[in-house]
Amino acid sequence: MAQNLPYVLVLGPPLTYSEFQPRYSSSYNFLNLSSSPLPLLQFLAAHRVHPSSIRAILCNPLQRVTADVLRSLPSLGVVITTSVGTDHIDLSECRRRGIRVATAGGLSTEDVADLAVGLLIDVLRRISASDRCVRKLIRFEFLNLPLGSQVGGKRVGIVGLGKIGMEVAKRLEAFGCKILYHSRSKKPSVSYPFYSSIVELAASSDVLVVCCALTEESHHIIDRKVMLALGKDGVIVNIGRGALIDEKELVQCLVEKEIGGAGLDVFENEPHVPKELISLDNVVLSPHAASMTLESFNHTMEIAAGNLEAFFSNKPLLTPLLDD
Amino acid sequence: MAQNLPYVLVLGPPLTYSEFQPRYSSSYNFLNLSSSPLPLLQFLAAHRVHPSSIRAILCNPLQRVTADVLRSLPSLGVVITTSVGTDHIDLSECRRRGIRVATAGGLSTEDVADLAVGLLIDVLRRISASDRCVRKLIRFEFLNLPLGSQVGGKRVGIVGLGKIGMEVAKRLEAFGCKILYHSRSKKPSVSYPFYSSIVELAASSDVLVVCCALTEESHHIIDRKVMLALGKDGVIVNIGRGALIDEKELVQCLVEKEIGGAGLDVFENEPHVPKELISLDNVVLSPHAASMTLESFNHTMEIAAGNLEAFFSNKPLLTPLLDD
Repeated sequence: MAQNLPYVLVLGPPLTYSEFQPRYSSSYNFLNLSSSPLPLLQFLAAHRVHPSSIRAILCNPLQRVTADVLRSLPSLGVVITTSVGTDHIDLSECRRRGIRVATAGGLSTEDVADLAVGLLIDVLRRISASDRCVRKLIRFEFLNLPLGSQVGGKRVGIVGLGKIGMEVAKRLEAFGCKILYHSRSKKPSVSYPFYSSIVELAASSDVLVVCCALTEESHHIIDRKVMLALGKDGVIVNIGRGALIDEKELVQCLVEKEIGGAGLDVFENEPHVPKELISLDNVVLSPHAASMTLESFNHTMEIAAGNLEAFFSNKPLLTPLLDD
Repeated sequence: MAQNLPYVLVLGPPLTYSEFQPRYSSSYNFLNLSSSPLPLLQFLAAHRVHPSSIRAILCNPLQRVTADVLRSLPSLGVVITTSVGTDHIDLSECRRRGIRVATAGGLSTEDVADLAVGLLIDVLRRISASDRCVRKLIRFEFLNLPLGSQVGGKRVGIVGLGKIGMEVAKRLEAFGCKILYHSRSKKPSVSYPFYSSIVELAASSDVLVVCCALTEESHHIIDRKVMLALGKDGVIVNIGRGALIDEKELVQCLVEKEIGGAGLDVFENEPHVPKELISLDNVVLSPHAASMTLESFNHTMEIAAGNLEAFFSNKPLLTPLLDD
C-alpha cells in the first residue's frame, strides 16, 4: 500500500464495496472501520494513522456519522454518503465545522417505478404465490392454483403523482390500466382524473400505488377508512415509505380480507416486517429494494468515486449537499 | 331437480365449476362424472340416466374425450370444452358422428403478455427471491439481499412476434426496453430490428421472451447454442410452450450459471417441473397460468353457457370448431 495515498475512512461500506475498494485502491488508502470491532480512535491507532490524517469519510445510511465522530477528526473535509438521504449524518455539526457533504444524488425514478409495477403484477397475477406453490409440489395441479386477476382495465389510483408516480402511470397505461390520482394539488398538465379526497380515490380504484413523500401531513395517509373504501378486491402497492400506511390497520385488513392484497417494499419498523404477513399468500414482501439495482449501485459508486476525486483535487463536488 | 331439464355430462369440470353449476342448475341437469369413481356407463346407471339422454358434454383439457366415450352416448350432439385447444378430444370421431365441438374461443392475449412482463420484471428485480428471503427472516438485512438488475435499457429479443409478442413489446417499450425480434419472416409493418437467426438475436439481447407457437420447426428453438449466445447475464422468459426450449439444457445452463435467470410459465413435462430448478433463486416458476385470470375464466364460463344455450335452442355455436 503506497504510503502517500490519501486516507479514506470507510464508515459503513457501500453495498458494492467489494468491487469498489480494489478498483480505487491505487488512489486511496481505505480504512474500513466497519470491518473492525474497535472504536474509531483505537482503530486508527491500531493502523498507526493519526486522526488528523483523515480528510474524507465514505459512509452508508446504516452507520451514523455523529458529532462525536466529526469532532474526532480535526482535518475532516468531506463526508460522502452512498445514499440519497442524509438522516444518518449530523449535518449541523458538518456545517459548523465547514465539512462538505455529498450524497448519491437522485435515485433512479425508473427503477422505483419498475418495482411498483412488478409488485402490482405480482400481487394481481399471484406470481410469487404460484412460484411458492410450484416449488413446494415440484409440479402443479390446475385445480389448486391461486387464481390471479387481470391487470388490464384495472383502475389504478396513484397517491402522489410526482416523478415516480408519472413513471408508474406511463408503464401501466401500456397495460390498459386506467389512471386516477391524488396529490396535494391538481396538476394542470395532467389529464388523469384528480381526487382531492384520498377516500374517494380509493373508492374509485381497484389498486392504490402509494408513492408520495413522507411528511407530517402524509403520515398514515392510508388509514383504515381508505382501505375499507378500496374494498375486498382492492390491492395496495407501497414503494414510498412505510409510515404512509397505518401498518397495524393494513395487517388487520389483509388478515381479515377487508382488502384483496398488497405489494410492499417499505414497512413502518424496518428492517422488521409484521410477522402476520409472512403466512399470507396475497402479499408480496420486498426488502426496501425499489431503487436497488446493480446498475444504480454502479452509478452510485461512480458518483462516490467522482466526489472523492473532486474533493482531493479541490474541485466542486458532483452531488453536493453542503459545499461552500 | 326438475326432471325435464336437459342433461349435461360434465367430463372434467371447468375450473370455476363451483360457481358455474349453481348459476345454471335451473337450466340443466349437470351430471359430474369427474366427482365419481365409477366408469361412465355405471355412473349413468347409478343416476338412472339412459346414455341416449345425454346430448351435451362439458369438458376441460385434463379429461380425454375418447372415441369410446363418444360411441357410448348415441344421442350426443355437442362437446363443449372450456379450453382453447382440443388435443383432448377425438375430433375425427366427432366429425364422423356429426357431433359439434365448441372451444373457449381465443385466449386473452393481454393476460399472457402481462404475465410475460411480470415474469421478466420478477426475474430481473428478484421479486420472488426477495419475498422468499424476507418471509424466512421476518426482517431484511441490506447487505445480504439478492441484488436485481434494471429493466430499463435492456435489449429484449422477442421470439415469435405474433399477437402476444406485439403486446409484450408494447408494454416493455413503456419501461424503456429496446425491442428486437425473430419470426419466421420479417414483419413489413414493424420497425423493431429483425433477426432471421435466433442465435444472432440471442447474442444481441439481454432477455429473450419466447412466445411463438410450438411446431415441428420451433421444437427446441431455444437450444444450448442460443443460451450460450445469450450469455451469463441473459434471462429467458417462456410463456409459449415448454418444448420450445431444450429443457435439459436450460436446467444445465441455469445450474452452471451459463445464463443469468429464467421466468418459466411452461415446461416440457407438465405438470412436472424439473426438480433442479426448485433450489435456484434466479428462476421464477409459474404453473402454466399465463392466460388464467378470474376475468378470463368468467369469460370462458359465459362462452360455455352461451354454447350450451345455442346448442339446446338449435342455434349456431358461439365458438364453433366443428359445427355443420
